[in-house]
Amino acid sequence: MHDTLNQIEPVSVARLESAQAHLDSLTKPPGSLGRLEELGRRYAAIKGIRSPKVGKKAVFVFAADHGVTEEGVSAYPREVTRQMALNFLDGGAAINVLARHAGAEVVVVDMGIDHDFGNCPGLLDRKIAMGTRNMAKGPAMTREQAERALRTGIDLAREWAGRGYDILGTGDMGIGNTAASSAIMTVFGGQDARRTAGRGTGVNDETFQRKISAIEQAIQVNRPNPQDPVDVLAKVGGFEIAGIAGFILGAAASKTPAVIDGLISSAGAVIALKLKETARDYIFTSHRSTEPGQEVFFQLLGHPPLFDFGMRLGEGSGAALAIPILEAGVKIYSEMATFQSAGVSQKNPPA
Amino acid sequence: MHDTLNQIEPVSVARLESAQAHLDSLTKPPGSLGRLEELGRRYAAIKGIRSPKVGKKAVFVFAADHGVTEEGVSAYPREVTRQMALNFLDGGAAINVLARHAGAEVVVVDMGIDHDFGNCPGLLDRKIAMGTRNMAKGPAMTREQAERALRTGIDLAREWAGRGYDILGTGDMGIGNTAASSAIMTVFGGQDARRTAGRGTGVNDETFQRKISAIEQAIQVNRPNPQDPVDVLAKVGGFEIAGIAGFILGAAASKTPAVIDGLISSAGAVIALKLKETARDYIFTSHRSTEPGQEVFFQLLGHPPLFDFGMRLGEGSGAALAIPILEAGVKIYSEMATFQSAGVSQKNPPA
Repeated sequence: MHDTLNQIEPVSVARLESAQAHLDSLTKPPGSLGRLEELGRRYAAIKGIRSPKVGKKAVFVFAADHGVTEEGVSAYPREVTRQMALNFLDGGAAINVLARHAGAEVVVVDMGIDHDFGNCPGLLDRKIAMGTRNMAKGPAMTREQAERALRTGIDLAREWAGRGYDILGTGDMGIGNTAASSAIMTVFGGQDARRTAGRGTGVNDETFQRKISAIEQAIQVNRPNPQDPVDVLAKVGGFEIAGIAGFILGAAASKTPAVIDGLISSAGAVIALKLKETARDYIFTSHRSTEPGQEVFFQLLGHPPLFDFGMRLGEGSGAALAIPILEAGVKIYSEMATFQSAGVSQKNPPA
Repeated sequence: MHDTLNQIEPVSVARLESAQAHLDSLTKPPGSLGRLEELGRRYAAIKGIRSPKVGKKAVFVFAADHGVTEEGVSAYPREVTRQMALNFLDGGAAINVLARHAGAEVVVVDMGIDHDFGNCPGLLDRKIAMGTRNMAKGPAMTREQAERALRTGIDLAREWAGRGYDILGTGDMGIGNTAASSAIMTVFGGQDARRTAGRGTGVNDETFQRKISAIEQAIQVNRPNPQDPVDVLAKVGGFEIAGIAGFILGAAASKTPAVIDGLISSAGAVIALKLKETARDYIFTSHRSTEPGQEVFFQLLGHPPLFDFGMRLGEGSGAALAIPILEAGVKIYSEMATFQSAGVSQKNPPA
């Protein structure tokens, strides 16, 4: 992992400036495409080529189960993690529809689903264990498991970047994983679980109270150390969150943009940023979900979300919606005419 | 025109409810895709079919010149309207890039550019006049011209809907047209021009003051009657704004979703809504631009924008970005598996 962290370099300021100069030569008032220009500029600077293109894209859905479901923190039964993983492989879930629409592949990674799939075509078996342990009673995983899950994510991103994927999106599946993610956000945000926990898949008041209590108890019992991101991940995280954190680091080390989905992916991104701050240059936000804990990520990153559709599904659904927008920014950068080539007059000189 | 207005019917509430019931049977927590569900639901209800699809799409760029440029209200010279129209036909402008990305055609309509294009392949010649007159000194156009421009827009939308286009986006080009649009917004918003005017293509303080004065003067000189939308359009509008207003009405009468771009399209939409309130059911918002006057449209429509990228280009650029998002909502509606078909457990029953 340390090799990977050392390979993550900030994006060159000179490249960003030269990319902006190019954008300002295009037939539009300077800056008039707002955040679309920011996306194109950063993508161009990351790739370091004059006319960047977007080729292959993939959204990785990291899936795992959570021991904390014992506490009754979710509206759905635990077996839904397994059932939805199969739904992803069958192509019937929201992420399949949205990724197809974006021209992106969906890669489903079993990081720790509580089920023996046997030989299951299409499913990447990277299982660390049959789900985490109940964080409300002790550490969710061992430190060694957390490190192994991080390396798994790193290796996957490196492998796909090596195969020429230009954009990697993150996604998740795991009943109980908003509880784990909110616990991570509570630890790093220095806040109360009441402010970082949300209603996940849509729990009622009673379940919501149990969820907050479980998060509070997990932090009290385990005392995760915010100065040690792997400690936090091991004690109150999840295998899919660790996979996502590693995946972001692997993408950054491979100079490949990583598009981050909602709360769970944002919790993974917070771990990644705490491990290596400069990973931020490769991170592209997608949506603001309805989960309040996600704000800790935006604050740490220093970048706002791209849009807010009031979504709370996970799976990478927000990332899949953001990929075509990033791609639009890249095409603006590479395909528009310049004032000179199109024979269009520039701004009036000041009187 | 009155036939068209009479044909605009509200979308059936029963159809909206049945569309929502279908969305709730899909493998996701109910409501978890937020505004994407709203888009799919309304599209399905408009089309009235079980598995709606999105076929052909087009963004119409209505272009015209403005007499108010005499007052020195823009950062760009008047000939940029003509130059950009040619850039659209050459495929080098932002709208070409973004429409191509969305799989939509770009249709450029000359509603009143101050130039004789002769035989110009690709340009739809619907010229009303060589630009409007200076609204700061008198009516921008005659009432007859305003009505003719409205009918032109209606006919274009009807024609394209008849050819099987499923989504029609609006766009504009016209140096000086943010001044006209802000004047319309000022009249209908009952506000001060200082609150509804923005910096358009990016004018400096001095030009901005001239722009505000020109809007104030136009309203003072012409006394447009907010109870009579055609009067407002004629006195302080523009030919492209009238074309857009008619286009939206024609789309609504043809039961075809109209995706609205930024300030200028929003001014056209306000005229359309003032002529026929039920047109709102066929109107889909795209972005919030940096122009403050656009808020009058969102208030009147009762729907917020879909996203805010800090854009201020026009041309239909925001509409082109929104079309793939609307399409994503439709695909969610038509392509996802149901809980039953995928064998996924539903929510835990309340304890």
